[in-house]
Amino acid sequence: MTDTLNAGTSTGKVHAAHPAYKASDKVASHLQQLLVDVSELALQAKQAHWNVVGRNFRDLHLQLDEIVEAARGFTDDVAERMRAVYAVPDARSATVAANTTLAPFPAGEVSTGATVDLMAASLYAVAATGRRIHDDVDEEDPTTADLIHTILERIEQLAWMVDAENRTV
Amino acid sequence: MTDTLNAGTSTGKVHAAHPAYKASDKVASHLQQLLVDVSELALQAKQAHWNVVGRNFRDLHLQLDEIVEAARGFTDDVAERMRAVYAVPDARSATVAANTTLAPFPAGEVSTGATVDLMAASLYAVAATGRRIHDDVDEEDPTTADLIHTILERIEQLAWMVDAENRTV
Amino acid sequence: MTDTLNAGTSTGKVHAAHPAYKASDKVASHLQQLLVDVSELALQAKQAHWNVVGRNFRDLHLQLDEIVEAARGFTDDVAERMRAVYAVPDARSATVAANTTLAPFPAGEVSTGATVDLMAASLYAVAATGRRIHDDVDEEDPTTADLIHTILERIEQLAWMVDAENRTV
Amino acid sequence: MTDTLNAGTSTGKVHAAHPAYKASDKVASHLQQLLVDVSELALQAKQAHWNVVGRNFRDLHLQLDEIVEAARGFTDDVAERMRAVYAVPDARSATVAANTTLAPFPAGEVSTGATVDLMAASLYAVAATGRRIHDDVDEEDPTTADLIHTILERIEQLAWMVDAENRTV
Amino acid sequence: MTDTLNAGTSTGKVHAAHPAYKASDKVASHLQQLLVDVSELALQAKQAHWNVVGRNFRDLHLQLDEIVEAARGFTDDVAERMRAVYAVPDARSATVAANTTLAPFPAGEVSTGATVDLMAASLYAVAATGRRIHDDVDEEDPTTADLIHTILERIEQLAWMVDAENRTV
Amino acid sequence: MTDTLNAGTSTGKVHAAHPAYKASDKVASHLQQLLVDVSELALQAKQAHWNVVGRNFRDLHLQLDEIVEAARGFTDDVAERMRAVYAVPDARSATVAANTTLAPFPAGEVSTGATVDLMAASLYAVAATGRRIHDDVDEEDPTTADLIHTILERIEQLAWMVDAENRTV
Amino acid sequence: MTDTLNAGTSTGKVHAAHPAYKASDKVASHLQQLLVDVSELALQAKQAHWNVVGRNFRDLHLQLDEIVEAARGFTDDVAERMRAVYAVPDARSATVAANTTLAPFPAGEVSTGATVDLMAASLYAVAATGRRIHDDVDEEDPTTADLIHTILERIEQLAWMVDAENRTV
Amino acid sequence: MTDTLNAGTSTGKVHAAHPAYKASDKVASHLQQLLVDVSELALQAKQAHWNVVGRNFRDLHLQLDEIVEAARGFTDDVAERMRAVYAVPDARSATVAANTTLAPFPAGEVSTGATVDLMAASLYAVAATGRRIHDDVDEEDPTTADLIHTILERIEQLAWMVDAENRTV
Amino acid sequence: MTDTLNAGTSTGKVHAAHPAYKASDKVASHLQQLLVDVSELALQAKQAHWNVVGRNFRDLHLQLDEIVEAARGFTDDVAERMRAVYAVPDARSATVAANTTLAPFPAGEVSTGATVDLMAASLYAVAATGRRIHDDVDEEDPTTADLIHTILERIEQLAWMVDAENRTV
Amino acid sequence: MTDTLNAGTSTGKVHAAHPAYKASDKVASHLQQLLVDVSELALQAKQAHWNVVGRNFRDLHLQLDEIVEAARGFTDDVAERMRAVYAVPDARSATVAANTTLAPFPAGEVSTGATVDLMAASLYAVAATGRRIHDDVDEEDPTTADLIHTILERIEQLAWMVDAENRTV
Amino acid sequence: MTDTLNAGTSTGKVHAAHPAYKASDKVASHLQQLLVDVSELALQAKQAHWNVVGRNFRDLHLQLDEIVEAARGFTDDVAERMRAVYAVPDARSATVAANTTLAPFPAGEVSTGATVDLMAASLYAVAATGRRIHDDVDEEDPTTADLIHTILERIEQLAWMVDAENRTV
Amino acid sequence: MTDTLNAGTSTGKVHAAHPAYKASDKVASHLQQLLVDVSELALQAKQAHWNVVGRNFRDLHLQLDEIVEAARGFTDDVAERMRAVYAVPDARSATVAANTTLAPFPAGEVSTGATVDLMAASLYAVAATGRRIHDDVDEEDPTTADLIHTILERIEQLAWMVDAENRTV
Repeated sequence: MTDTLNAGTSTGKVHAAHPAYKASDKVASHLQQLLVDVSELALQAKQAHWNVVGRNFRDLHLQLDEIVEAARGFTDDVAERMRAVYAVPDARSATVAANTTLAPFPAGEVSTGATVDLMAASLYAVAATGRRIHDDVDEEDPTTADLIHTILERIEQLAWMVDAENRTV
Repeated sequence: MTDTLNAGTSTGKVHAAHPAYKASDKVASHLQQLLVDVSELALQAKQAHWNVVGRNFRDLHLQLDEIVEAARGFTDDVAERMRAVYAVPDARSATVAANTTLAPFPAGEVSTGATVDLMAASLYAVAATGRRIHDDVDEEDPTTADLIHTILERIEQLAWMVDAENRTV
Repeated sequence: MTDTLNAGTSTGKVHAAHPAYKASDKVASHLQQLLVDVSELALQAKQAHWNVVGRNFRDLHLQLDEIVEAARGFTDDVAERMRAVYAVPDARSATVAANTTLAPFPAGEVSTGATVDLMAASLYAVAATGRRIHDDVDEEDPTTADLIHTILERIEQLAWMVDAENRTV
Repeated sequence: MTDTLNAGTSTGKVHAAHPAYKASDKVASHLQQLLVDVSELALQAKQAHWNVVGRNFRDLHLQLDEIVEAARGFTDDVAERMRAVYAVPDARSATVAANTTLAPFPAGEVSTGATVDLMAASLYAVAATGRRIHDDVDEEDPTTADLIHTILERIEQLAWMVDAENRTV
Repeated sequence: MTDTLNAGTSTGKVHAAHPAYKASDKVASHLQQLLVDVSELALQAKQAHWNVVGRNFRDLHLQLDEIVEAARGFTDDVAERMRAVYAVPDARSATVAANTTLAPFPAGEVSTGATVDLMAASLYAVAATGRRIHDDVDEEDPTTADLIHTILERIEQLAWMVDAENRTV
Repeated sequence: MTDTLNAGTSTGKVHAAHPAYKASDKVASHLQQLLVDVSELALQAKQAHWNVVGRNFRDLHLQLDEIVEAARGFTDDVAERMRAVYAVPDARSATVAANTTLAPFPAGEVSTGATVDLMAASLYAVAATGRRIHDDVDEEDPTTADLIHTILERIEQLAWMVDAENRTV
Repeated sequence: MTDTLNAGTSTGKVHAAHPAYKASDKVASHLQQLLVDVSELALQAKQAHWNVVGRNFRDLHLQLDEIVEAARGFTDDVAERMRAVYAVPDARSATVAANTTLAPFPAGEVSTGATVDLMAASLYAVAATGRRIHDDVDEEDPTTADLIHTILERIEQLAWMVDAENRTV
Repeated sequence: MTDTLNAGTSTGKVHAAHPAYKASDKVASHLQQLLVDVSELALQAKQAHWNVVGRNFRDLHLQLDEIVEAARGFTDDVAERMRAVYAVPDARSATVAANTTLAPFPAGEVSTGATVDLMAASLYAVAATGRRIHDDVDEEDPTTADLIHTILERIEQLAWMVDAENRTV
Repeated sequence: MTDTLNAGTSTGKVHAAHPAYKASDKVASHLQQLLVDVSELALQAKQAHWNVVGRNFRDLHLQLDEIVEAARGFTDDVAERMRAVYAVPDARSATVAANTTLAPFPAGEVSTGATVDLMAASLYAVAATGRRIHDDVDEEDPTTADLIHTILERIEQLAWMVDAENRTV
Repeated sequence: MTDTLNAGTSTGKVHAAHPAYKASDKVASHLQQLLVDVSELALQAKQAHWNVVGRNFRDLHLQLDEIVEAARGFTDDVAERMRAVYAVPDARSATVAANTTLAPFPAGEVSTGATVDLMAASLYAVAATGRRIHDDVDEEDPTTADLIHTILERIEQLAWMVDAENRTV
Repeated sequence: MTDTLNAGTSTGKVHAAHPAYKASDKVASHLQQLLVDVSELALQAKQAHWNVVGRNFRDLHLQLDEIVEAARGFTDDVAERMRAVYAVPDARSATVAANTTLAPFPAGEVSTGATVDLMAASLYAVAATGRRIHDDVDEEDPTTADLIHTILERIEQLAWMVDAENRTV
Repeated sequence: MTDTLNAGTSTGKVHAAHPAYKASDKVASHLQQLLVDVSELALQAKQAHWNVVGRNFRDLHLQLDEIVEAARGFTDDVAERMRAVYAVPDARSATVAANTTLAPFPAGEVSTGATVDLMAASLYAVAATGRRIHDDVDEEDPTTADLIHTILERIEQLAWMVDAENRTV
C-alpha cells in the first residue's frame, strides 16, 4: 500500500492536518472512467426498462430496474470514494456520453431477446473496465481496490443472471 | 378531452382491441422534452451532491439528494406515461446532453453559495418546461396534465427550499 | 366548477348545515358505470390469476394480482367518492354481471397468450369508460375528474405492461 | 394556465434566474383563506377530541383525530404551496381566530350527537371555501387547483363519514 | 384419506410424473360452491361498507372491511386449493350472482341495525355451506378439510362479533 | 361432524337467522377446562419469570416469557372460539385458581433447575387436558379440534425445549 | 430519599458488593398489593372483552383489550421493580383472587352499558390503591414512586375514556 | 399527595363509583395555562417553519418541525391529563390567542438569525410557565407534576439546541 | 387419538412428570422419512436455482427459492415435532442422500423446461410420502397429522404453480 | 423547586431572553459525576462483552450489550440535560478514567462467574452515585431528579438480572 | 489479477460479447470444495440444533441457528459466484456427503458440552478450507478472494463464540 | 497468507481441534492500537456532539453522531476480530486515554468552526493508524486487512464530509 503522505511518520499525538493518502492522477483517472461507465450503465438499463417489448416483458422489465439500482448505487460509491481521496468526479450527461466505453444503446422499442444481449454486453463492458484498472489501483490503495471487488462481484452476478436467459444447454 | 380513437363509440360489451387514446406527435415531443429535462436535473443534482464545498456543506449535500430522488422518480413517471400513450421515451446520455433546456452545470468543486444559485436555476428551468407544454397537453389529455401538475408542485417546492438559503429579508 | 348548492353565498361564520355539492343524476350514473367496470375488472383478473396456464405462468400470475389490487382499490375510491357527493353505489354481483361494459371472461383454463389479450382488452374497456364519462364529470366537479385521471393513469399503465408481452418489434 | 413571467419565452439553455410563476394577489388571498380554515378545523377537531362525552365516545374520539391529522397535513400543503408561488402564509393563532369562516366551536363538554353535527358543519364550511376559490385558482394555476381537489376529496369524504352517524334511512 | 392415484405404490426413487391426488367431481363441486359463497360475501360486505348509515356508523364501517379482507383471502385460498387438486374455479360475477346460497343484499342505504342482521345472516350462510360439504371433503382429502376448518373458525368468529352488536343480555 | 342445527337443510337463498352450530354442554365444559388451564399456565410462567434465580437465569427468564406469550394467546383463541359456538368463557382469577388441573406453583424464589421441572410439568398438564378432551370435541366439531391441535403442537414444543435443559444423554 | 445501606459512604473506587437500596417491608407489601390489583384488572378486562354484548360491542371489545395490554405491562413493571429492590412478587391466581381490592367481575354475558360501569369502577379501584400507597413509597424511594405516577397517569386516562361513554352533558 | 376524595378510606372490595382524585380549580387553571402555551408554541413554530429565509434555511426548517411535533404532543398530553382529573381543556384559536404568555410571532418572512432568537424566547416562555405552576401542582398531584417534568426536559433541550446556533464561544 | 401414556388418568392437580404422548416407532419412522424428503427437496431446489439456464430464467430462479424456503421451513417443523413427541430426527447429508424417495437431480446446467419437469416430479414425490404416511399418523396423533396437512397444502400448491408453466390448454 | 432566575416574575407576554433555570455548581458537579460513571459503565460492559469466557458465554455476552446500550443512552441523557441547564459535560477518556467511582475492570479474559460479580458491582456503584446525588438535585430541579429516577430504575433492574445468575435459593 | 480473456484489450466502445474472466479449473474446484463444506456445515448445525440436550440448551439451540443462517447464506454466495465466473456448483446431498472435509456429526441426542466441541471443530474445518484455497484464488481473481475473506471473518467469529463456552480462564 | 498452524496439512475428515490461524504478537498489537484509536474517536465525537456551539450547530451536532455510530461499530468489529484470532482487546478508559495516537480534544464549549478542524484531524489520525498497520496485517492475514479497508473507506468518507465544511473553492 503506497503511503504518499505523512501517515507513516506520524506516531505521536498530533492534530493530523493532512490526510494520509491522496489519489495519484493515474488512479483518479481510472476511477473517473469507472464512474462514467456505471453512470452510462444506469441510463442504458433505465432506457431498456422502458422500451423493451415482447415475450417475458415483465420479468425483464423488473430485472432491468435491479441493474439500475445497482448501477446508481455504484455511481455514488465511486464518486464519494473519489472525493475521499481528493479526486473530482464528473458524471454530467455530456461527460458520460463522450467518454463511456460502453457501446451505445439503440433508440426505440427493443425486443426482449435483443435487450438481453445488449445488457449483457454492457455489463461485461463495465466489468472489463473494473478489471483493466484493478491492479494499478490495488498497488496504490487496496481500500479502493476493495470497492472495485464489490462492484465486480455484483456486476458479474447481474451479467450471469441476464445472460442465462439466452443460454441453452 | 380529445378522444382520438374508438372509446366514445364503444358502448357494448366487446373486446376493446385498441386503446382509447394515443398521444399526438405534439404531446409526445412535449413529454420527451420534459423527460430530458428531469433526467438532466437528476444528473446535475448528483454532480452537485458530490462536488459542493464550504459552509453548510452537509445540509446542502443532503438536500441535493432529495432533488435527485425526486427527479429520478419523475423520469420514470414521464417515461412510463409515454409508453402508456404509445410514445417512445429517449433518455440516453447523448440525447439528454444534446437536448436539455437546462444550462450546463460547471465541472469541479463548487461552493455552497454558487451551488444554491445553480440548482435553483435548474429547478426553475424544469418548471418552465412543464409550464410551457402544459396547455397543449391538457387540451388533449387531462390525465397526462395531472402528471405535469404533480411534477410542478414538487419542483417548485424544491426550488423554494433551495432558493430560500440565499434569500434575505 | 358547478356550484349547485349554497357554497358561494356562505361567506359568514355559520354552521354549514348542507354540503356545498351534490352530484347530479348524470354524474352519479357515470360513476356507477365506472364502479361496475372496475369491479368486473377485479373479478376477471382474479379469475385469470387462478386459471392461466402455460409459458410464463408465474410472471403473469403475479401481474394479474397487481391488476386485482389496483382494481379493488379503485372500487373503494369510486364508491366512497359517490357517497361523499350523495350518490349511492351498487357493486353487488348481479348488478356488476348485468351492467359491465367489459366482455365476459371465458370459463376454464386459459393459455398465457390468450390471457394477455383478454386482460389488455378489459383494461382498455375500463379506460374507455373513464374517457367517455370524463368531460361530463369535469364540467360539474373537477375534484371527481381528478379521481378519473388517477384511475386512467394506472389502468393505462397496466394495459401497456400487459400488452407489451404480446408485442413484437 | 396563466404564464405571468418568463417561462414561455425561455427556450434556450440559460440560468433561469426567475421563477416561471408567482401567484397574483387574488390567488394568494384565496390560499390564505383556505389555510386559515384548515388551521381552524385542526384546532376545533382536537378540541372536540378532548371534550366529547356520551354514547359512542371512543369511536368518535378516534375519528376526530383522523380529522386533525388530515387538517394538519393540509395546513402544511397549502402553506408550502404558497411559499412555492411567492406568497406569505399566516396561520398564527390570532389570525386564525379572526379570519376563519368556520363557526366557533363551543367551550366545555359536548355530547357525541352534537359533536357530529358541529364537525360535519365545519367540514362542509372548509369544503365551501375550497369550492368558492377553485375557479379563480384553476384559471391562473392548475397545479394549485389540483391541491384544492386533493383537499376537497378528503374533506368531503370525512364529512360523509362523520355525518353518516346521525343519518337515518 | 382416499388415495386415488399412484402415491401409495411409489416407494422407489422415481420421477413422480403424476400427482398423488386429484379431486373427485363431488369434492370439486363442493369447493366451487364454497368459492362462490365467500366471493358473494366479499361483495356484500363491501356493498354494506359503503351504504351503511346511522348510529355506530364508523365502527361497523371498519368491521365490514375486516369481513371483506377475510372473505377475499378465502376466495384465494379455496380457488388455489382447487387448482392444486386439479379442479377449475369459477368466480366470475355472473357465476357468483347465479349460484350463491346467500340471500341477496338490498340496494341503497341500509341502517346500522339492519346491516348487522343482514351480515350475520350472510356469515351464517357461508358457515352453513362449509359445514354441509365438510364430511364429504374430509373423507376424501383431510388436507382440504383443514382449509374448511380455517374458514369456519374465522367466519364464525366474525359472525359472533357482528351479531353481538344486536344481542341483549 | 355433528350438525346440530339447520345448516344441512338450508340449500336455498335465505337469511340464515340461526347459526349452523352451537356447542353441546360437554364440549363447552371441555373448552372451559382448557381455558382455565392455559390461563393458569400464563400466570405460573409469569410468576416463574420474576422469581427464578441461579445459573442460566437470563436464558430461562426469556424462555418463560415465550411461554407466557403463547399461553395468553391461547386464552384468547379458546375463549373467542367458545363465544363463536355460543359458550360462555370464565377465566376470572377465582375460577382459574379453583378449577385448574395444574399443580400450584410455589411462592418465593425458585432455582433455575427446579423451575425447569415445574414448568415442564405444567406444560405437560396442559397437554394432558388437551388430549383428554380431544376426541369428544373432534366428534362434534372438527373445526374446534383443529384449534386443540394448534395448542398441543406449540405446548408440546415448549415442553420439549424447557425439559431439554435438564436432560442428560 | 432514604439510604438504607452503604451508598452514601462509598465514595472511593470499590466493588460495591451490596445494593444501595432494599425495600422495607412496608414498601414491599404496598407494591405487592398494587401487583395483585393490576393483575386482577388484566384478568377482569379480558373476561369483559369476551363476554360483553349489545350496542357498541366492537368498540368496547377493542377498548377492553387496550386495558388488558396496559394492565399486563404494569404487572411486569411492578414485579420487576420489586425484584430490583429485593422484594418477592406473588401474582399467582389464588393470591390474586384472595387479595385484590377490586370488586369481583360477574360471570356470564354482560351488556355494554354495565361493562362500562364495572370497568370504570375497577380502574378507579386500581387508582385508589396507587394513591393510597404513594406517600409511603415516595418517602422511602422516589424512583419507585415515579413508577406509580406512570401507572396512575395511564389508569386514570383509561378510566376517563371508559367512563366518558356513559356520561351525559 | 393530596387525597381529595375517597381513595384512602376504600380498603374493602367495592365498586369505586367515584374517582380517587379530581383537580382543584387552581391546578385546573394552571394546566389550562400550560395547554394554551404549548398550543401557541406549536402554531408559532409552524409559522416560522414556513416563513424563515436565509443562511442555514433547511436545517432550521427541519428543526422547527421537531418543535412542532413536540409541542403538538404536549397539547394532547396536557389536555388528556386534564380530562383524567375532571378538568375541561380549551385550546380553541381565540382562547389561545387571548391567553398565551408567549410574545406574538411576527408576520411575514423572518431571517434565520431572528427566527432562532424568537423561537428560543418562546421555548423559554413555555418553560417559565411550567416552572411557575410546578410546585402548586406537585403539592396536590405528583402524577401530574411528572408530566410537567417530561415537558420541561424536552422543551429545555429544544431551547438549548435552538439557542446554540446563535451562541459564540 | 391414541393415549399411550398417563394423560387420561391424571385428573387431579399433580406435577405431570411424564408427557401425555410419545410417538410409536411406526410414526417416528414415518416422520423421519418425511424429514428426509423435505430436506432433499430443499437441496434439489437450491441446486436447480443455481444451474438453470434458458428462457424464463429469472422467473424460475425466483420460484425455486420459494420452494427452498418452504422446504427448509418444513424440515424444522417436522424435526421439532419429532423432538416434541420423543423421536430423534436425522437429516445429515449422508442420511438424506441414502434414504430419500426423490429421484436424484442431475448435475450441471439444466434448461428451464427440464427444470420445471424435474421440480414438479420432486414436489409430487414429497406429496406422495405425506399422503402415504398420513393415515397411520392420524390414527395415533391427529396433532401431527395436522402438520402433514399443512405441508401437503403448500407442496401441492407449489407443484401446481411449477407445473402450470409446462401445461397447455 | 428552586427558581433561580426570572421565571416566576415573567407573567406578561415578553420575549424571555433568559432561561428560567441554570444549574448551580453543586448540581452541575453531581451530574458530571453521574456522566463519568455511566460512561465508565459503558466502557466496562463492552470490555466484558469481548473478554468473557466459560459456561453460559453467549447469554452473558448478549446481556452485557444490553448494559452497554443502556449506559450509552444514559450518557446522552445526562450530558444533554447538563447542556439544557447550562452546564458543560466532560466525558473524555482521561476524565472518565481519572474520576469514576467504579472500581477498575481487570484486563484480559474473565470467566463468566467473575464477570457477573464485577458487573453487578459496577451497576451497584452507578446506582450508589445516583442515590447519593439525588436529594441535592431534587431540591433544586425536580425535572432533573426525574432523569435520575429513570436511570436508577433501569440500572437496578439490570443489576438484579445480572446478579440473579450467581444467586442461590 | 489474471486477465484470462479480452478485458484488457477492449478499450473502444464495443458490445463485449464475452466475459472478462472465467475461472480456471483450479479455482473452480477450490470453490466447489468450499461450497461443499459450507453446505455440510449448514446441515450439521441444523442437526445439532434439533438434537442437543442438557444445561444451557436454549442458548446453544439459538446459537446453532445463527450458524445455520450464516452457512446457508454462504452456500448461495459461493454458488452464485461460481456461476458468475462460469463454473458449475454442485451441492446435492450425495455430493456433499461424499466430498466434505468436515468430520461427520454423530447421530442421536448430543449433550451441550459435546455439541460445543463438535461445532467448533466443524467451523475450524471450514475456515481451514477457506485458508487453504485462498492464495490460489487471490492470485487469479481478487474479487473472489474477497468473498473468502467475508466467509472467514464470520466463520472465525462464530468459532470463537461457540468455543468460548467451553474455555476456562 | 501466512498459515501459522495446521490448516494446510489437514485435508482428511477430522475434528479440527485447533484453529487454522492465530494472530502474531505484531498483528495483535497493531489491532490493539486501532481499537484504542477508534474508541477514542467515539468518545471525542460524543464530547464534541454535546459541547459544540455556533452557526450550523444542529447540522454538525447530527454529523458528529454519525461519527460516533461509525466509531462505536468499528470498536466492536476490531475487538471481535481480535477475539476470533486469539488476541485480547483492551478498550478500558485508562488504556484508551494513555495509548491513543489522537490529539486530546479540548474541554468546554467549542465553536463549530474549530470542531470541524478538530474532528477532521482526529479522523485523519485514525486513518493514519489504519494505513500504517495495513501492510503488516495484510501480509499475515488478508481477511483482517479487509476489515481495515472497510474502516478506512468509512473514516475517509467521514473526513471528507466534515472537512468540506471548512473548504473554499
